[in-house]
This record gives sequence, C-alpha cells and structure tokens, in this order.
Amino acid sequence: MEIILDSPLDMHLHLRDGDMLQRVAPLSAQTFSAGLVMPNLVPPVTSKEMVLSYKERIQEATKGEVFEPYMTLFFRPEYDYDFLREVKEDILAIKLYPAGITTNSEDGVDNFSVEALAPVLEAMSELGIPLCVHGETNGFVMDREAEFIPIYERIAKRFPDLTIVMEHITTKEAVDALVRYDNLYATITLHHLYITLDDVAGGLLRPHLFCKPIAKRPEDRMALRKVAFMAHEKVMFGSDSAPHPRHKKEAPGCAAGVFTAPVALAALAQIFDEAGVLDNLQKFVSDNARRIYGVTPPKKEVTLLKEPFEVPPSYGDVVPMFGGETLRWRVGSVL
Amino acid sequence: MEIILDSPLDMHLHLRDGDMLQRVAPLSAQTFSAGLVMPNLVPPVTSKEMVLSYKERIQEATKGEVFEPYMTLFFRPEYDYDFLREVKEDILAIKLYPAGITTNSEDGVDNFSVEALAPVLEAMSELGIPLCVHGETNGFVMDREAEFIPIYERIAKRFPDLTIVMEHITTKEAVDALVRYDNLYATITLHHLYITLDDVAGGLLRPHLFCKPIAKRPEDRMALRKVAFMAHEKVMFGSDSAPHPRHKKEAPGCAAGVFTAPVALAALAQIFDEAGVLDNLQKFVSDNARRIYGVTPPKKEVTLLKEPFEVPPSYGDVVPMFGGETLRWRVGSVL
Repeated sequence: MEIILDSPLDMHLHLRDGDMLQRVAPLSAQTFSAGLVMPNLVPPVTSKEMVLSYKERIQEATKGEVFEPYMTLFFRPEYDYDFLREVKEDILAIKLYPAGITTNSEDGVDNFSVEALAPVLEAMSELGIPLCVHGETNGFVMDREAEFIPIYERIAKRFPDLTIVMEHITTKEAVDALVRYDNLYATITLHHLYITLDDVAGGLLRPHLFCKPIAKRPEDRMALRKVAFMAHEKVMFGSDSAPHPRHKKEAPGCAAGVFTAPVALAALAQIFDEAGVLDNLQKFVSDNARRIYGVTPPKKEVTLLKEPFEVPPSYGDVVPMFGGETLRWRVGSVL
Repeated sequence: MEIILDSPLDMHLHLRDGDMLQRVAPLSAQTFSAGLVMPNLVPPVTSKEMVLSYKERIQEATKGEVFEPYMTLFFRPEYDYDFLREVKEDILAIKLYPAGITTNSEDGVDNFSVEALAPVLEAMSELGIPLCVHGETNGFVMDREAEFIPIYERIAKRFPDLTIVMEHITTKEAVDALVRYDNLYATITLHHLYITLDDVAGGLLRPHLFCKPIAKRPEDRMALRKVAFMAHEKVMFGSDSAPHPRHKKEAPGCAAGVFTAPVALAALAQIFDEAGVLDNLQKFVSDNARRIYGVTPPKKEVTLLKEPFEVPPSYGDVVPMFGGETLRWRVGSVL
C-alpha cells in the first residue's frame, strides 16, 4: 500500500540557526517541498536584512534538496507601512508572539489592544500579508489557548481582509472559532493529533513530548482530529517541529518543543490511514496551504509506503518524536 | 516571630528501603514525632513479618531521634479476618492502591466492586483498622481523582464504621466529598498547597514537581488551601514525600514524586503565616491526626522561627522541593 504526495508543505517550522540549523534543516528539506520558517531566533528576525540572510543560511544548509523556505518576520508593533511594503516580497507572513509565551519569544507583544496593534495590522491587511499567531494568554496552562480566542475574534472582526492563522491549535474552542470568521485559519501539528496531556504526564513524565501549547484533553484531540482528518479547507499541516539538544530536554527546566520533522510524513500517513482517510492527506499537507497562502511550491513527489520505519533514537543530539519506536509507514522515494 | 509545634505528624510518608531509607528517614525523624509509612516497597509489605522487619529497619535508620514509624500494610483483597486480627497490633492502617497507578503499585487492586473488596473491608471495619486510599482511576490525568470519588462514596456508604482516608487529595471534588460522609477523611500534601499544573508544566517543565496525583487547577488548590488553612477537623497533613534519585527524575520517563520531608514544617509555617492562620497549624499537622487515628505520638517540641532557610540544592542525590531557594521560615530547636 502506498500514497504519493504532491509537494507536501510544513507551514510551521523551527529551523533554528548555526549548528542546529545545519543538523535539522536537511531533515525537513528531504521530504517537504517548502516550509514556513518561524522567526524566533536570538535576536528575532525583524528586518529585511535579517530575513534575507537567514534565508540564505537555510538555503545553504539545504543545498542539493528541492526545498523553498517561506520566510516570516517577527511581529513588532512599531513596523510602519513603508517598511512592510518593502519587506513584503521577501516574506510570506508575519508571526506574532505574546511576550515570553514560548522559546525565544521574550521580545513579543504584551499589549493586545486593537489600538496598539492596529497600525501594523492595517498595513498588513492592505498589503495582503498574512498574520500568524501563537495564541496563548499567560493564564493557567490548560486554559491559555481558549482564553486567547476573544483576541483572535477581535482582530478577525476588525480586519476582515487580513488572513489570520491560529498556529498549532490544541483545543476544541479554537476549532469552534475557526468556522465563526471567514478570515480565521489554523495549523495543526503532528503531535497534537497523536497525544494528550496523558502522554506527557499521565504515566511517567515524558519531557520529549513537552511543548507549548501543551497537549490538552482527549475531547480537544478529538476536535483537532475531526477537522484534520476531513482536511477542512481552513486547516493546514504545520509541524511546529522544534528541536532542542537532549541536555535541554532531559533536565530540570526542560525546554518546550517536540522534534517531528524527520517523522512527520510517515506518522501522518499512519494516522490518516488508521482513520481511513488517507485520501485527505494531500489536502491537509499541501493543497489547503497553497490556497490559503496563494503559493505554488516547487514540485516534489513523495511516495509513502506502508512498511515499517524504525525511527532513530536521536538525530545528532536531538531526540525525535517516536524515537526508538517503529512506525507503520515510511517515506519511499522522493522525486 | 516563632511557633512551637507539639509532636508534628506526617501522616503519609515514603521512606523507601536500603540506601534511600538510610538517607531520607533521618530527615523526617529530625522534625516529625511520628509518620505513617507507606508500604509500596518492591515487593510490597503484605505480611506481619514484612511489617515488623521494615519497622525495624526504619527504627535502625532513625536511631537517636524521637520518631515513631506508624506502619501500614499493602491492601490485598485476599486478606482474611484472622490474618488481619493478628497483624492489627503492628499497623495503624492498610493502604489501598489501584493497580499501576503510581510508583510500585503494580500489585494493587484492579477490581473496585464492593463485592470484591467487601470481605477485607468488613473485617477492617470490625477490627477498627483505617483504610488509606490512593484514589485515582486510570482515566485522563486531570480527571482521575474526581472520577474516583464515586468509589469513595460507595465504600463510605457501605461501611459506615470504617475510617477512610482519601490520601493526598488534589481537587475541589475531593474536598466536597469530605463533608458528605462522616467516615471520609483526607490528607493534604505540602506541594499541593503550593503548586498547580502551571508550576509543573506552565513555564519550562519541572520534573522535580512532577507527582501523582498531578497538581491540578488554581481553583482546586484554592479548595485545598481553604480546608487546610482552617484546619478542618477531617483533614491532616501527609507530605507524600517521595524521594527518587536525581537520575530517575531528570530523564525521559521521570518518576513521580516530590521530596519534601526536610522542608515540610518550614514551608508549612511559611504558607500558614502568609495566610494569617499560623494558629491553625498545630491542628493541621498533629491534633487532627491524633483524633482521627486515635494515636498519642511521642513527645517532641519543634520551634519554628521566621528566619531565612536556604534549602540545600540536594540531599545526597535527592533534590528537595525548594532546593536552592530560600524559605522565610526555618526549624529552630527540637526538644
């Protein structure tokens, strides 16, 4: 049994920088045709020069593979129209982080009043630059995403022409919001389709499954699976693959992030196959994103086979999801 | 500022065995007058001989301190009346674990029908042996305790003369149940008075705060604080202090348990002081347990002072709660 995917896309991806970039970028580039690269470096990507030089470093790290890095800019409320007009050709979206909410987000936004955000959002709306949002408040960890929904709604209502992507959604509240506003979209990760908080902390504690937003309740996972498995036209795959070296994960003060880039397509095929919806995977992992973002990714034909895939326990010093386990699907040829 | 506690009791305590027992038992014995020692060794404590020999090892490990180990037996549905009558003089309670629910509980109970448990519970009721319960189902990690409440209620209703202690309660549902049945009591830990899931997984992941039952929501902590701070007559302090060596905590598959024995009284004084209820600490940490269990612990006068206590980062290879931090209260003299 097999399935051939046409230009699979990962619309939420952390490639980091330096040595880590060298190690992980090729793993995404081997199976994905393009990916939306997050800008939360240290310091964050906030200028045209930084976008272009980061893009160059990614292209260098993925040389030899067909892979287009779609670049993002780190949202700052002080960007002006002229700057955005000029940077527009180099980016696909702008990513908004609440201050301090996840890895390297210290420089994010701490005032979510429409007044504070309006100048930039108006310019983005006019210029047709999509807004990607890490939508969490600083409330109780299980409530943060649901508490953020009113902010999504306020922005969606005030800027009806702005494309807004709720990144890595984890709750049924976010799924519900998706259908209330025409301009609200969402990415869903691999790990949030698979796990709940039970997998992180229900047995022994599993730091390699610890991420932000944290995996939620079974009914939340069910809501995510529902829209992913039907390839709902407003949802796209975004792995949020977020590598950390092992010593940052297996320690007190374990960093948030699940590394899924090298296993994502195989594990997606497995779970879509088990749900009997393998035919919808092409839309979830490529077609929906093309339509939502209006992109035409480079051609790449990925054949997935229903054959055992022994996932390596680690890639360098980064432990992947399913590390040491055997998946029931694997990547065959990539053309 | 100071407070003098008369014979403080820790009514839920893991002392382990072997080297770990040698390391941690003195830390409890230094400040507590007595403690109810849990029987989840490998293999579990299930016979008179095991009780007596474990008690001897504890006494050996705490030689030189005034400290009485109150012993428990690991609940097995096959215990008969004669056995229980004979072991009664050596134990203070029997501890029931659902199978596989926490550290070394693999041999626990997997059938909670009243029929399956009735013979032992009837005998215990008749003999006046209290039942201590780790009350969690194998459901979703945030729901396990609340889901177990109907089992508590079934047992409480069927055996009105049986003293039932809901161990280390973590939810407002358990607090609510407490008042519905005369024979339901509870222990509350130090860490569940201090932390919620936010402290475990809301920022970076903190394995040393990972425990079973897992810390719950802010409103749950509020319910626990309410009955603890008022020293509600049906609640007692039980630390559930559960040492694991550092390499078992700071690793994938981190073991559940917070080690609080050496900081418990200082941290209790601090939080009761902050709540303005220092006068209720004596009841919470001693008087209530004496009345509920009908015990008279050995005399020990512990003076707590409102002076800084720099908590060691570790005791041997065991990391305590507040390790490396400074508490605002410390143990002064122990007479």
